Amino acid sequence: VTRRAAGSVFLLTDYGSADEFAGVVRAVVQRNAPGAPVVDITHEVAPFDVRAGALALCRAAPHLGPGVVVAVVDPGVGTSRRAVAVRAAFPVPTRLVPPGTEPGTLDFVGPDNGLLPWAIDAVGGAGPAVRLPGRPAGAGGATFDGRDIFAPAAARLWRGEPLADLGDDLDPGTLERLAPPRLAVAPGVLEAEVQWVDRFGNVQLAARPADARHAGLGAEVVVTVAGVTHRARTVDTFAAVEPAALGLVTDANGHLSLVCNRRSAATVLGVGPGDVVTVRGTQDGAP
Amino acid sequence: VTRRAAGSVFLLTDYGSADEFAGVVRAVVQRNAPGAPVVDITHEVAPFDVRAGALALCRAAPHLGPGVVVAVVDPGVGTSRRAVAVRAAFPVPTRLVPPGTEPGTLDFVGPDNGLLPWAIDAVGGAGPAVRLPGRPAGAGGATFDGRDIFAPAAARLWRGEPLADLGDDLDPGTLERLAPPRLAVAPGVLEAEVQWVDRFGNVQLAARPADARHAGLGAEVVVTVAGVTHRARTVDTFAAVEPAALGLVTDANGHLSLVCNRRSAATVLGVGPGDVVTVRGTQDGAP
Amino acid sequence: VTRRAAGSVFLLTDYGSADEFAGVVRAVVQRNAPGAPVVDITHEVAPFDVRAGALALCRAAPHLGPGVVVAVVDPGVGTSRRAVAVRAAFPVPTRLVPPGTEPGTLDFVGPDNGLLPWAIDAVGGAGPAVRLPGRPAGAGGATFDGRDIFAPAAARLWRGEPLADLGDDLDPGTLERLAPPRLAVAPGVLEAEVQWVDRFGNVQLAARPADARHAGLGAEVVVTVAGVTHRARTVDTFAAVEPAALGLVTDANGHLSLVCNRRSAATVLGVGPGDVVTVRGTQDGAP
Repeated sequence: VTRRAAGSVFLLTDYGSADEFAGVVRAVVQRNAPGAPVVDITHEVAPFDVRAGALALCRAAPHLGPGVVVAVVDPGVGTSRRAVAVRAAFPVPTRLVPPGTEPGTLDFVGPDNGLLPWAIDAVGGAGPAVRLPGRPAGAGGATFDGRDIFAPAAARLWRGEPLADLGDDLDPGTLERLAPPRLAVAPGVLEAEVQWVDRFGNVQLAARPADARHAGLGAEVVVTVAGVTHRARTVDTFAAVEPAALGLVTDANGHLSLVCNRRSAATVLGVGPGDVVTVRGTQDGAP
Repeated sequence: VTRRAAGSVFLLTDYGSADEFAGVVRAVVQRNAPGAPVVDITHEVAPFDVRAGALALCRAAPHLGPGVVVAVVDPGVGTSRRAVAVRAAFPVPTRLVPPGTEPGTLDFVGPDNGLLPWAIDAVGGAGPAVRLPGRPAGAGGATFDGRDIFAPAAARLWRGEPLADLGDDLDPGTLERLAPPRLAVAPGVLEAEVQWVDRFGNVQLAARPADARHAGLGAEVVVTVAGVTHRARTVDTFAAVEPAALGLVTDANGHLSLVCNRRSAATVLGVGPGDVVTVRGTQDGAP
Repeated sequence: VTRRAAGSVFLLTDYGSADEFAGVVRAVVQRNAPGAPVVDITHEVAPFDVRAGALALCRAAPHLGPGVVVAVVDPGVGTSRRAVAVRAAFPVPTRLVPPGTEPGTLDFVGPDNGLLPWAIDAVGGAGPAVRLPGRPAGAGGATFDGRDIFAPAAARLWRGEPLADLGDDLDPGTLERLAPPRLAVAPGVLEAEVQWVDRFGNVQLAARPADARHAGLGAEVVVTVAGVTHRARTVDTFAAVEPAALGLVTDANGHLSLVCNRRSAATVLGVGPGDVVTVRGTQDGAP
């Protein structure tokens, strides 16, 4: 077993930062994989919100580079839900700017509850996968698999142990999947789920620019939320939105997002994740 | 002076993350110990809450591995309270999964105000210890010893400087200690302090499973808080708790914890750290 | 292009920790500069608050050591505001305790909106600087320059690429600057802006001890905020402030700060950043 040429251990959890949970996971990784760069993606996924965690991991995955992701949003910790490690089907380029060094593998470790597959899809799909063994009988409290199962497994992978040594083969087609975000496209109208409201109040929709083109929407649209309509204009930057107006941007994840300029669009619209927004061309629904 | 074979610099403070305090401490460690893995345990200990910090550090300590802990919850910064560095009595195994590499030392650096001893106990007790010199006269603002005294000392230890070079010998038996958490065990009844309410609302008690056995408690118990009683059932996992019910688990630190399934037990019980909870067998106190 | 002898990549943003923004920036740095120590200064600058970010970076800068700072508080992302990289005029000592190793360069990467110059001043001023190219046409969402422009540029600098290779030369005298914090000194009186209220409620003023000496203030002062006066006494430590009293300390950044003992002075005074406080000697204004 030799150290990998490159790669980090990436962490995404709902452990928060008020407690030492995330810190202990970082320490267990570092103890078992000395020298591994440990990269916190976020630990502030809302408690138990597997869907929000899956979306955040999916947004981050294409940018991570090689290494091992530990993702833990796991209300079923200690139950018979499987613990898994899944390798991305394709090696990931190491250095982007300028290109260089060998590509490396990207692995995902976590509970089999829907948290991982969207992110794995986002990097090209799953290669080999294994089921990690559960905790040994009599090992005591079964409430912190991040510390006791996932972080040690990630450390072994980072050190270069073969994936197959970590558990029994698993068909990645059997991984649990969440219901996809709602999206309906028809002539002149999009219906899209709010996937994410970020810190700045930007409202990411399940729709992409191609969906807006298929719907035939123009640069001016009418957004309807819970019966209330708002005009929005397609813009390239937050700063291009007029004060008190709404903008529709293609965001950094390639999604359509409703945004304001130095204000929260989510507050203006009164929406949150899971709400459905209707976007129409101005010709059929101008207020 | 040579670099240690392995080990991290671990940080636990009440500095929060809104300000740059923790970041400056990280930078000072990295500047003086280039290449040291810096592991944040947490920076969100409640301001000035030495007891909460001591408990969090004690929970984390057995999992850290070799290195140097910098712990700062220090309302007496700049006063005559001592600044100390204490080496754990026993070297700590480096790699757990699978076992490997040489064990290494684990040192604790911080104020002598009760923050450190419980964690040192948790890894087998104290070995040699020194008092760190205070800041030089005329060195200016005496309000940030984490930056000016503790982080530089930790960097020197991480680099392999002998502990004795950092200050004058100190008898670790003279370190300040906090009052232990309240715990009383009698036939049929436990009285235990709430040590910790975590992000998920789990209520960690000062009691352990052995205390429940000594009290002769069974799988069903009655919990009394401020005159109000609640039934709870012993479970292995959060998911095994019925909706709207309370569970009693052995948690990941080997303590008894009152928990709910995807809800806050602390909210249900109306308790916080420092409150005392009574746990009885159902035969003598069923509501 | 060879790896630098030493140095970290330092991050300061208003990205918060609830979303994965900061995590993705960390990953992009690590991907493009494998092995670089990544040091979070803070990600909790208030959204869009360039001034607060500039002040935090200025306080941190003298302690960072060599490396590359990525600073992003950037309401103008995607507009024609320049993206820049600026080298500090003087190399920075690597190890402080005890002194050792070669000094290294310190670079600042971020938007040209006033965020960087105070920090650059704090380490001795600017050396060479370049304007970074914008995103390629058709590169999609222009809302996350931290990920797409600043982090990759910082990785290249950390790896040792010449600054001049990253963009066209720029006169650092043309960098945008914010209005300096308000400070007026007259015999017997200081008027100073509140620059910062930290997590503990300490109130950092734009004034320094030399300003108090020039004003001829003694150890007892009268502080006026919005017409209400408070007495304060000069102290060396928080613990030296009497319960229910106010203290005036020289803080860890060499500024005068109004403080309490285990309480928030900001709450006592009812002040926040940007407010102006008047400090007088007791002889002319005792309440």
